[in-house]
Parts: sequence; C-alpha cells; structure tokens
Amino acid sequence: MTLDDLAAELRRFAAEREWERFHTPKNLALSLAVEVGELLEHVQWGSDGEIAARFATADGREALAEEMADVLIYLIRLADVTGIDLLAATSAKIAANAVRYPADEVRGSSEKRPNLSG
Amino acid sequence: MTLDDLAAELRRFAAEREWERFHTPKNLALSLAVEVGELLEHVQWGSDGEIAARFATADGREALAEEMADVLIYLIRLADVTGIDLLAATSAKIAANAVRYPADEVRGSSEKRPNLSG
Amino acid sequence: MTLDDLAAELRRFAAEREWERFHTPKNLALSLAVEVGELLEHVQWGSDGEIAARFATADGREALAEEMADVLIYLIRLADVTGIDLLAATSAKIAANAVRYPADEVRGSSEKRPNLSG
Amino acid sequence: MTLDDLAAELRRFAAEREWERFHTPKNLALSLAVEVGELLEHVQWGSDGEIAARFATADGREALAEEMADVLIYLIRLADVTGIDLLAATSAKIAANAVRYPADEVRGSSEKRPNLSG
Repeated sequence: MTLDDLAAELRRFAAEREWERFHTPKNLALSLAVEVGELLEHVQWGSDGEIAARFATADGREALAEEMADVLIYLIRLADVTGIDLLAATSAKIAANAVRYPADEVRGSSEKRPNLSG
Repeated sequence: MTLDDLAAELRRFAAEREWERFHTPKNLALSLAVEVGELLEHVQWGSDGEIAARFATADGREALAEEMADVLIYLIRLADVTGIDLLAATSAKIAANAVRYPADEVRGSSEKRPNLSG
Repeated sequence: MTLDDLAAELRRFAAEREWERFHTPKNLALSLAVEVGELLEHVQWGSDGEIAARFATADGREALAEEMADVLIYLIRLADVTGIDLLAATSAKIAANAVRYPADEVRGSSEKRPNLSG
Repeated sequence: MTLDDLAAELRRFAAEREWERFHTPKNLALSLAVEVGELLEHVQWGSDGEIAARFATADGREALAEEMADVLIYLIRLADVTGIDLLAATSAKIAANAVRYPADEVRGSSEKRPNLSG
C-alpha cells in the first residue's frame, strides 16, 4: 500500500458519495486544521514523561494513530485535488532543509531551533 | 520513494543534528499545528474560484506544496517517534469510514456532512 | 463585566483546583489551538450562505458562542500567566494596522489582502 | 477601553477599507487559526523553563502580546459579524465549568484533566 493507493481510494470514496463539490482546497485545508486540533488533545496536558507512557501502551498509540490518520487523509485528499505530488514535495523540502541547517553548524547550538521545516 | 524512506531520512536528519531530544510528541504535534497554520494562509481570503485559479499555476501549486511538505514532515516524524504505522492506520480509518458513511445513505443528503474522518 | 474580571475569575478557578502548575504558556497555547479546531468545525463544510443561515438561528449562534468562549478563556488565561495586557496590546495592534494598510490605498485593491493582523 | 470599543473600531476599520465582504464567518475563523499557528511558534521548542525565561523579558512578552492581539482581533470581529456577546458567553461558560469540575472533586486528581473548557 502506498500514498497513491490511498489517494485513489479517497477519490473513489468521495465520488461514490457525490462529495467532490465539498472538497474544495479551502474546505480540505480547514478540515486538516480541525483534525490537527483533535490530535493536539492527546498531548494537551501531560508532561513529556506522562505522554511517552501513554503512547507506550497499545491503547494510547491506537488513539493517536486514529487522529494521525485523519490528518493524513485530508492531506492526501488536498494534494489530490490540487495535483500535488506529496512525496516528491516532501523529499525536496528535506533536501532544502539539509542545506539550510548544516549539521556541523547547528549541532549543539542553542540558537538554531530544531526545525524540520524551513 | 516511500513514506518509510522519508521517515528514515528524517530520523538520520535529526540524529546528525542531535535534535532527538527536542522531538517529543508534544513538540512535534505543536509543530504540526504551526505548519497547518501556514498552509491555511494559502486559502485564507480568496473565493473558491480565486483559490482554484492560484493553484492552477505552477507558482501557486509550488507554494502550497511546500507547506504540505512541512505538514507531512512533522506527521511522519511524529509517527516515527511514537512507533505508529501511518499507512496502515490511514487505510484502516478509510475502511471504518466506509462503514460509517454508507454511500447509498449519504449521497445527496444535506444532513450528512462530507467528512472523510470519523 | 470586563476582561479583567474574567481573568480574576479564571485565576481563582485554577487556584481552587490546584491547576496552576498545568497552566504553563506551552499548555495554554496548545489548548487555545485545540479550541480553535473545535470552533472551525462550525464553518467546516457549509457555503457562506448556509453558515450565515445557521448563525442566524439562536441555536447555531449559541453553539458558536460556546466555542468562542473556550478560545477566549485560554487567551485570557495565557495573558494572565504571562503578564500581558490583552486590551492594550490589541488596541496598539489595530493602530499599527491602520498605518500599515492605509484605507485609501487598499480600498478596492485586489492585491492587498483584507488582513486585520499585520 | 473595552472589548466593545475594539469591536466598534474594527467595524470601522473594515468599512473604511470595504473589507466587509471578505469578513465571512468562515474566513474569520480560518484567520483565527492562522494567527494561533503563529502564536504557537513562540512556545514551539523550548522547555517550560526556557519559555518562562523568554516571557520574563520585555521583548519576549511584546512578541507574544502581538500574536495574542492578532488572535483577539479575529475573535472580536467574528463575534461582531455573528452577533455574539463574547464576554457574556465567556462568563456563562466559566460558570458551567465550575459545575462540571467541582473543586473538591478534581483537586489533586490525576484523572481529571485541568480543562478550562468543557
């Protein structure tokens, strides 16, 4: 199973329900934000230790996995309706970040924030 | 290239910069929300028509693709540090949604919201 | 009733429950994002017309008002624990925006985005 | 200065720029999420101690205050265009939360999450 398989499955899912007209980029981006909000609930109050303990259990991991799936579903669908190649874009961004944050420079530096994004 | 390849790349990226200790689930989930906020800027004010026109250009699509890459990067990294199989979780969620929203029932219904999440 | 009254009430609320130690800036900011995610659900799929119709009803408005209250609660609490004067900061920001977006320049311009923030 | 004063100011601000048509509930809610994303950047990577140290400086507090102002601006504007009384709604929500989370029950309980929202 690949991202492309999931994109095709979601395309069919939407078509069978006649939901394409609702799946505008604006609505899908907004839905992505709704789902990230739900995901955040799983790390809302605990300390790093408490959160790690929860995600070390099958139940805790399963609950988080469901929210992450919801996020990925909308991300895949948004990429599909806008014609974006998610894997290629992500690979290119990681390569650009490697240039932007040279390992030898940022290692151990408290100035440089540990951003994976640019 | 697959999601697993990207996860391995990001794992190495973080290790080389000694960033693992910053990549707690709480920080990564929060970073995911930061990036979704940036993605939302691309659909913030335009009408559906204006947004579609922008994403029909290479520049507009490229700008959106970069934000989507940032979102996926944090999603992949969060899955990696928590030991979640993103593709399997997403596939399972789509299957569950298919049961929850039977096509024959929701088609054309204004009551049922076109949710891809459950 | 004023924002200051509500800040004092929330301070007492937290103290009576011994919740102050949970109310770190990071946790409160994250909670703000959770609540905004819930608020977004109320504008997630409808057209502007459908949404306006829903908020024209007492029930629709009441549901939205509850989510907005949750957002304001965390915003007030975050301002309180960090010692920020929300009203003064907001008034100063509006004044700065008035300089940044001169009415005569942006009126009718499709270039300038109708941002209320800077 | 009160929330009502700021609401009136923002109403005038939008009118002078002919921005009312952009200020739909959907666009304003989405803008709220954009600004919360920017606010989150200020607590994205630091430990609670590092974040507290930053907000103990005038510069750190000023930077956070600007983001909080942006959030409040969109919240006030959204309340204004939908006819919601923010202070009344918030006061009512705090009263409801006091019933929902009785101080004697939740104090010291690790079960009950320190939610200020319901």
